[in-house]
Amino acid sequence: MRKCFNYFAQLRLDSQVVQMLKAILVIADGMADRPLKELDGKTPLEAAVKPAMDRIAENGACGIVDPISPGVPPGSDTATLAFLGYDPMKAYSGRGALEAVGSGIEVLQGDVAFRCNFATVKKNLVVLDRRAGRISNEDASQLTRSLQKIKLKKSFNANFMFKNAVQHRAALVIRGPKLSTAVSDSDPELNGKKVLQIRPLDKRPESARTAAIVTELMAEFQKALTEHPVNRERIKRKQPAANIILCRGAGTIPKITPLPELYNIRFACVAAVSLIKGVCKVAGMDVISVEGATGTTQTDYSAKAKAAVQALKTHDFVLLHIKATDVASHDENARLKTEVIGKIDKMLDYVLKNIDLSATHLVLTADHTTSCATRNHEGDPVPVAIVGPYVRRDSVKEYSERACAEGGLNRIAGTDLMHIIMGYLGRTKKFGS
Amino acid sequence: MRKCFNYFAQLRLDSQVVQMLKAILVIADGMADRPLKELDGKTPLEAAVKPAMDRIAENGACGIVDPISPGVPPGSDTATLAFLGYDPMKAYSGRGALEAVGSGIEVLQGDVAFRCNFATVKKNLVVLDRRAGRISNEDASQLTRSLQKIKLKKSFNANFMFKNAVQHRAALVIRGPKLSTAVSDSDPELNGKKVLQIRPLDKRPESARTAAIVTELMAEFQKALTEHPVNRERIKRKQPAANIILCRGAGTIPKITPLPELYNIRFACVAAVSLIKGVCKVAGMDVISVEGATGTTQTDYSAKAKAAVQALKTHDFVLLHIKATDVASHDENARLKTEVIGKIDKMLDYVLKNIDLSATHLVLTADHTTSCATRNHEGDPVPVAIVGPYVRRDSVKEYSERACAEGGLNRIAGTDLMHIIMGYLGRTKKFGS
Repeated sequence: MRKCFNYFAQLRLDSQVVQMLKAILVIADGMADRPLKELDGKTPLEAAVKPAMDRIAENGACGIVDPISPGVPPGSDTATLAFLGYDPMKAYSGRGALEAVGSGIEVLQGDVAFRCNFATVKKNLVVLDRRAGRISNEDASQLTRSLQKIKLKKSFNANFMFKNAVQHRAALVIRGPKLSTAVSDSDPELNGKKVLQIRPLDKRPESARTAAIVTELMAEFQKALTEHPVNRERIKRKQPAANIILCRGAGTIPKITPLPELYNIRFACVAAVSLIKGVCKVAGMDVISVEGATGTTQTDYSAKAKAAVQALKTHDFVLLHIKATDVASHDENARLKTEVIGKIDKMLDYVLKNIDLSATHLVLTADHTTSCATRNHEGDPVPVAIVGPYVRRDSVKEYSERACAEGGLNRIAGTDLMHIIMGYLGRTKKFGS
Repeated sequence: MRKCFNYFAQLRLDSQVVQMLKAILVIADGMADRPLKELDGKTPLEAAVKPAMDRIAENGACGIVDPISPGVPPGSDTATLAFLGYDPMKAYSGRGALEAVGSGIEVLQGDVAFRCNFATVKKNLVVLDRRAGRISNEDASQLTRSLQKIKLKKSFNANFMFKNAVQHRAALVIRGPKLSTAVSDSDPELNGKKVLQIRPLDKRPESARTAAIVTELMAEFQKALTEHPVNRERIKRKQPAANIILCRGAGTIPKITPLPELYNIRFACVAAVSLIKGVCKVAGMDVISVEGATGTTQTDYSAKAKAAVQALKTHDFVLLHIKATDVASHDENARLKTEVIGKIDKMLDYVLKNIDLSATHLVLTADHTTSCATRNHEGDPVPVAIVGPYVRRDSVKEYSERACAEGGLNRIAGTDLMHIIMGYLGRTKKFGS
């Protein structure tokens, strides 16, 4: 292990700090992995140069976490809900609403929201590219402005909000009386498959009505996109035309008690992707947008680290989320993932040097395993390390899936994490007397 | 640790194998134990020569498992249900039906089934031997043929099926309208105790009716057995007469979704004892019978290993169950148990040499602790080791209760095991997005 600055040399155990204890939870999306052939049987975490992470592990308590439960591949939404202390089996109500909230659309109880993709289809509706060549934010924004002008037929007695997020990502919210989330996706989830018909998933008239509204709207969207000058330009530039909107994950807003109400402190979140922003907003956190934070491997890591440090001055708990590790995994790029981990390590180095370590607990984890071999989210546990004045430091010296498995936290559930952090902050209520 | 053939030298981490990944789950019944005085404080696993098992641990990820929950002694039926991923608290509906299904009796919803023993009683109904001297299959089969000819009184409007399994084991199924599983056992579970009256366990007329039917039938059985020529022969040979049938564990068929429906792959089971066959059949597995597999310590270990290897050619998941370790434990024979473990090790050696380790996950565990000191199933956790291409190998080098407790899987619940295996096979569904 490479040595680095010993942030923790001054770490005091001081009972006077209780009033101002703070915490920062760093979640690297899909950072955990399985042993990989191209890394000589190491995981990207094991192969990466990451002195700050290792120093966190060395000075802290380590363990492994099942975000949902052993073997069950988590989504980033369900895992983040769990890490914030909510039982995802009860709280989760679909991706759509979270994505929409994260994109800045207000979603009310009764609204039905969808996660959408700008995509490329052939005339016969077979999907060529589910992400329209990871369309630029600029092109997607221009297309979105046109789509927003479309009107639903009056007879539907409903209206919609549509907003693009990073690259191909977008969100759609339908608002009106008697809607239902029991409708199927149009997104076939695989290139080479035909776009699916949106159908009601039960026999309630609300579900049939919702399916009819979305079907009609998608047809209007497709018409507008196909003829759009932005797409004509894309074709000229040999880029795939974003000629359809695919939607999936019909959902509504989760019914959860916001964190500030549960713990009576101030929560903030620094994240780029709208799904995580949505989860955090729904949980009552202040969502901080950062210039240059793109959710890609080229995100402005340094700007996010600075924003997190700043946020910790005005808030008691900050969640710092980095998407880039997951992007590299889905692209089956173990080398890139290893490099991204190195960049996240530099973020941590900055954070550790710029926060008051005598009064702050820092938690480092991943929301799930994303295997560079399978390119999928996997149900393998993720490593966690917690460092701070109240932590029972253990003998683990390296931050990785295997090293942390030998740590003092043993194996915990995702929903335990927030309670453990709030416990260090003196914010959990005694049960019993 | 003794060295043996390094099966894993060629283990590849190859993303191309995803489509044909397979798994074999080896369950040695009651193999886990407590430290024993006669083994100088070692457990039988620690005392045994078992190079293949140790090699599995050395190349895999290890841990300990609570089949049901810490401290709760599992039955083989509930533990196997748990290992197959079913919550035993919800799925378990009594031993009787599982035993009956495993004996080849079809059990329908509404039937009430019992686990039965051929036993020896004195005239005053005090039990001399609950297993009738572990009666031979031949004698039990002859007696069974006579019992099957008995007719229930017409007024009962019910009929029965009775079938013997290995040695003293048998199963009884009552079929007819309005039956209940709320009836007590006649088996006192201890030699020296008197046979119990079968009573209704609640006030429903169905329960009274079921108790009356079984009481009547047991009396008829006893009459037929007492006078039976097989028993006269047994007495001449100084063997205990099988002069009564004891029944217990009134149950019905569990309501569970079969594994092939849950995971869309092919499941097989290689087992000798009818209880395990029954659990596996109910779970939708193809149950493979093996010539010479007796469920005793003299079982044909090699034939079972070969059958498992064959089964893995036509199925994606194979459960290989060996009863002998439990038999030795119940007989308080630590030396024999240690030898049996050595024989199971040779089975594993054969299996490892004859399967494609680059695409197969092998899981080795025990369904419960059976203590050679107490002769009982105990609630202590059992060791588990998983080896295969996707496993995060840990630093454990020996397969035993204590060595595995230091492994990378930490401590998991019985119901986690199937989800972890199906996770490696890419068969668990993502929760969230």
